[in-house]
Amino acid sequence: MSQTVNVVKIGGNIINDSRALETVLDHFSKLDGPQVLIHGGGKLATELASRLGVSQTMVQGRRVTDEETLRIAIMVYGGWINKSIVAGLQARGIPSIGVSGADLDLIRAVKRNPVPIDYGYVGDVTEVNRAALIPLLQTGTTPVFAPLSHDGKGTLLNTNADTIAYEVAKALADSFQVRLLFTFEKEGVLLDVSDNGSLVKELNPVRYAELREQGKITDGMIPKLDNAFRAIEAGVSEVILGKAEVLPRLIERSTGTRLYRDV
Amino acid sequence: MSQTVNVVKIGGNIINDSRALETVLDHFSKLDGPQVLIHGGGKLATELASRLGVSQTMVQGRRVTDEETLRIAIMVYGGWINKSIVAGLQARGIPSIGVSGADLDLIRAVKRNPVPIDYGYVGDVTEVNRAALIPLLQTGTTPVFAPLSHDGKGTLLNTNADTIAYEVAKALADSFQVRLLFTFEKEGVLLDVSDNGSLVKELNPVRYAELREQGKITDGMIPKLDNAFRAIEAGVSEVILGKAEVLPRLIERSTGTRLYRDV
Repeated sequence: MSQTVNVVKIGGNIINDSRALETVLDHFSKLDGPQVLIHGGGKLATELASRLGVSQTMVQGRRVTDEETLRIAIMVYGGWINKSIVAGLQARGIPSIGVSGADLDLIRAVKRNPVPIDYGYVGDVTEVNRAALIPLLQTGTTPVFAPLSHDGKGTLLNTNADTIAYEVAKALADSFQVRLLFTFEKEGVLLDVSDNGSLVKELNPVRYAELREQGKITDGMIPKLDNAFRAIEAGVSEVILGKAEVLPRLIERSTGTRLYRDV
Repeated sequence: MSQTVNVVKIGGNIINDSRALETVLDHFSKLDGPQVLIHGGGKLATELASRLGVSQTMVQGRRVTDEETLRIAIMVYGGWINKSIVAGLQARGIPSIGVSGADLDLIRAVKRNPVPIDYGYVGDVTEVNRAALIPLLQTGTTPVFAPLSHDGKGTLLNTNADTIAYEVAKALADSFQVRLLFTFEKEGVLLDVSDNGSLVKELNPVRYAELREQGKITDGMIPKLDNAFRAIEAGVSEVILGKAEVLPRLIERSTGTRLYRDV
């Protein structure tokens, strides 16, 4: 049996709440075996753009990454958030290294086709550099990924953190048992977002399709779950969605939503 | 004879001038053997502070790093400049990784004593993690250092890039022949800053002391040269000062100022 790697994506409000982030780093630093952390950007990039008077264009609910917005993303995600997390992990005795997709050529992407919608400097991942990533884990180093890829021609690209988490988990699936944890502000998949009692503890693709049809899973949960099911299909052993502050309980399966493949 | 490592510090105007930076990365990527790049912050952090309305306090000509200024430094140095350089090196086929002192615990520091002058979040380097740094070089990876250290307790600290360059060069001197290049906007040490013909091609500590006494070396050149001579004393094989855009000519010794120890 190969070793289990925990690939943990933290996002949403955690990034903006320094006390909650400290709790998550406490939990994360106590996990066994090799780990990978992927963080999103929270609201800090939007806040900085607003302070700088850089207007943000949204198309079909998604932000367009123009040149100034890309620079802000690199500063906030690749700089402030990434380095703060790494400093926090080092303080907890976890040898870690903060990376963008350009570092060690870890995540290559192509700039998204501007037709039909030009999202600007947004990358669609083409390759994860397993030859660079796996030795980090084997030598006990925890990579901390900012949601940035690069095109190999000198340009960094804004990339969805859930996608980075999926791609990294997939790339490791040949060499490790991979447990992929998507954490966010909810207890997991909820049938009624205002009621934690409505937590869906287990979900397979058939049930997911039903709940979508019934309009019980909507909005931002759809791309998140699509990514999550793709990970299962790609050989990731276990995918769990839930609240970052209860990371150990997610791993023990005492809360959160666990996805499984149809048998 | 052990291998030669080039430790190249780039700073000043180069960072602000994307065309000049491209030229420097072209040269840097063609150097033989293991390399380390250290970059300063140029004026970009000051510009960002100004756009954000964060006032900068100077004490005795040096900037005070308060909490907001530290965050700007981490965003600009650790994010924007560092990741842009790494993406540029990857585009030139140089496997590189951008790091702060927190990454791999590479550079530990203590917050500078606030007495007599409180410079805020400024770090005085205590240790370079040779056990993490040397394997990067041995596996053909070029580390790109932002001028940031950490205290091991979760706090990043602003640290002079010349000092980082000196500390890294010193840490490598037991294992390699180290050539340390401090590059900036001048041809080297000039007796008359407006006349490139006044270049001092070689400098030893005695001559340096004389030129200081005569008031021919002043201001920012003094801490730079103090650092540079400390490197020689610490076992660095060769220290050269000059213009980044002519990096190969500095190495060939056809321009720049070369420091040597008294014999």
